[in-house]
Amino acid sequence: MIDFMFHMPTKVIFGSGKLKELANPANVPGKKAFIVISSGGSMIRHSYLTFVQNMLNHNGVESVVYNKIQENPILDHVTEGAALARQHECDFVIGLGGGSSIDSAKSIALMATNEGNYWDYMQSGTGGRKTPANPALPIVAIPTTAGTGTEADPWTVITNSETNEKIGWGNDSTYPTISFVDPWFTLTVPPKVTAFTGMDAFFHSVETYLSVQRQPTSDLLSQQAVQLINTFLPEIVKEGQNIEARTMVSWASTAAGVCQSLSSCMSLHSMEHALSAYYPQIPHGAGLIMLSRAYFKHLTPHMPERMVDLAYFMDVDVDSLPEDRRPYAFVDALDKLINNIGMGELSLTTYGVKKEDCVKLAKNAMETMDVLFACTPVKMSEEEVAAIFEESF
Amino acid sequence: MIDFMFHMPTKVIFGSGKLKELANPANVPGKKAFIVISSGGSMIRHSYLTFVQNMLNHNGVESVVYNKIQENPILDHVTEGAALARQHECDFVIGLGGGSSIDSAKSIALMATNEGNYWDYMQSGTGGRKTPANPALPIVAIPTTAGTGTEADPWTVITNSETNEKIGWGNDSTYPTISFVDPWFTLTVPPKVTAFTGMDAFFHSVETYLSVQRQPTSDLLSQQAVQLINTFLPEIVKEGQNIEARTMVSWASTAAGVCQSLSSCMSLHSMEHALSAYYPQIPHGAGLIMLSRAYFKHLTPHMPERMVDLAYFMDVDVDSLPEDRRPYAFVDALDKLINNIGMGELSLTTYGVKKEDCVKLAKNAMETMDVLFACTPVKMSEEEVAAIFEESF
Repeated sequence: MIDFMFHMPTKVIFGSGKLKELANPANVPGKKAFIVISSGGSMIRHSYLTFVQNMLNHNGVESVVYNKIQENPILDHVTEGAALARQHECDFVIGLGGGSSIDSAKSIALMATNEGNYWDYMQSGTGGRKTPANPALPIVAIPTTAGTGTEADPWTVITNSETNEKIGWGNDSTYPTISFVDPWFTLTVPPKVTAFTGMDAFFHSVETYLSVQRQPTSDLLSQQAVQLINTFLPEIVKEGQNIEARTMVSWASTAAGVCQSLSSCMSLHSMEHALSAYYPQIPHGAGLIMLSRAYFKHLTPHMPERMVDLAYFMDVDVDSLPEDRRPYAFVDALDKLINNIGMGELSLTTYGVKKEDCVKLAKNAMETMDVLFACTPVKMSEEEVAAIFEESF
Repeated sequence: MIDFMFHMPTKVIFGSGKLKELANPANVPGKKAFIVISSGGSMIRHSYLTFVQNMLNHNGVESVVYNKIQENPILDHVTEGAALARQHECDFVIGLGGGSSIDSAKSIALMATNEGNYWDYMQSGTGGRKTPANPALPIVAIPTTAGTGTEADPWTVITNSETNEKIGWGNDSTYPTISFVDPWFTLTVPPKVTAFTGMDAFFHSVETYLSVQRQPTSDLLSQQAVQLINTFLPEIVKEGQNIEARTMVSWASTAAGVCQSLSSCMSLHSMEHALSAYYPQIPHGAGLIMLSRAYFKHLTPHMPERMVDLAYFMDVDVDSLPEDRRPYAFVDALDKLINNIGMGELSLTTYGVKKEDCVKLAKNAMETMDVLFACTPVKMSEEEVAAIFEESF
């Protein structure tokens, strides 16, 4: 018997050239935007910020820009951004860029309408476990990478640098009101970032396919996203200007975002959060890649049927394998994909992670993101989690 | 290149026993409900109305019941219901029952907050083509049949008995806020209604798979719905107490509703609307069945690849057929399905339709529901539409 909740209220406008529809007043949920972008400067360098502001001007919408977001976005910028959004009386928030900017936009939108500190509302670790009194300001998501899927889910992941906690949170008001997924804006993403963000979407698809929260629609979309990323991600890492392949990966990323709304990620994401909470120089996608082989090898004997499914989705000729090797065909295909996108050499050593941190990282993962361990169909002990970190060197 | 809009904001709570969650205050969008049910009495006979009222009482929610809805719901009841909802100061509307009651609930919710006559807002035929000034009251959909999918789309279909027009309409505010799809409540549906409503869902799936509005997610869900209905509808027509099979068909119906939000139906639905506008004794599903073979036979040569897909979804051994017969395998499988649910003898003659009405029906279909002709990938002339009606005797 199946039961589930199907809910993903965001209006997603998808397609190359579609960001132009921001000039349609029906697509803009306010009169003054707080635009959140990264500190890296690419939104300005590629004129994406100007493009967005021009579209808003068509509707007489003013904007204030906040440009401090880091690769792993932090609490201090949520606090500062929310204060500025209030001060300028912005009535909606735009996240423009990668997942860091969009997640920060979500958290800023929440704190622009609620009192206290953002961490008061976190539900795990040192979070205050309070419930926000008010809904967030309306959120507009404009991803310029293909990876996080945050444009189609309510989740926002923020790091508290003081406590080394990277925690995901969301409620019905942090679904974007509207998201523009325009693959044209991903053409300028450099190969390495293309690979890391694409693999983030890949793991969303795989984890939501295996999660105890899965449902019929997430199963179908996860399958499609795994297939598309396996086929097209290596192509766009090699040839970034291929708009057809970029479009396929953008859709896979958004589809995997829908899956994060309908199903859930698993403890691989908890473990990566611990890793980049302590080592913020590690891009989220890189962290996932480095942990993934040991992680899925650990899960395989506990859920062999679903692992065989995943191998089929990755175009493995499963039937030609001896029966006892079939469940492991997915980990082999994953290894091949990681090599195909040029990340075969990546390991925790690359980023200077210390081997003696493994137990600390395992503890942190299980305390700050316990909810995703509960969504994993295999119960895991602290020792097992630490062992997966150790195997990833 | 693909582009599309993905939008289906309704929160759908799916599963046997899940209607109990109406007792959770988070799931009720108001303090006083206007409950819309059919005139047939089954909601009272089976105590479903009492069950709903008891759940609402848990939250201190009062209710007013309106019980006049007919099989093909009419404008007069929208007008009367909206006046009553205003008079009693209801702040949300519940549609409990089949598609007729839920569609009426949607239209009543709209007219409870807007001035004038509902027909002022219809966008075709003799409709006034106005835009409503206000959003509808929040809508809760509780389907007790598996067919219309209205629990997962914004559409409502109402007949103007004076002008013989049956027109579909919807906007962002007529998506239900929340829908409870509890297959347990479909166990009491008699075989004939099970067959008719199930085939409505079947045609939603097929039409949204063929429509020019299709997108990746609707393609996946349409395919699944076609497969599930083809397998399980004949089972529940024979054995109504099979809750597993009922659950599969309920999900297929809701999935096909999602497809009507993401993609669109086609002109088969326009033609059926004309038919039951003039012959309101024809159940919608029966009308679709009777027109369907001639309709899809007409489309087949124009879109052979997609027709072959549909035959695969219906478990036809397509590869064993001579190549020129493969596109027609879907129409053959459809004919088999219609026979399997005991509706093989049904034709327009059964309901006393007059042959000389065919041109009038074609004209009506193309005038009142022109938008679904535009969603059909094959351009159709009035003569061709009339000929399909003629072939369906």
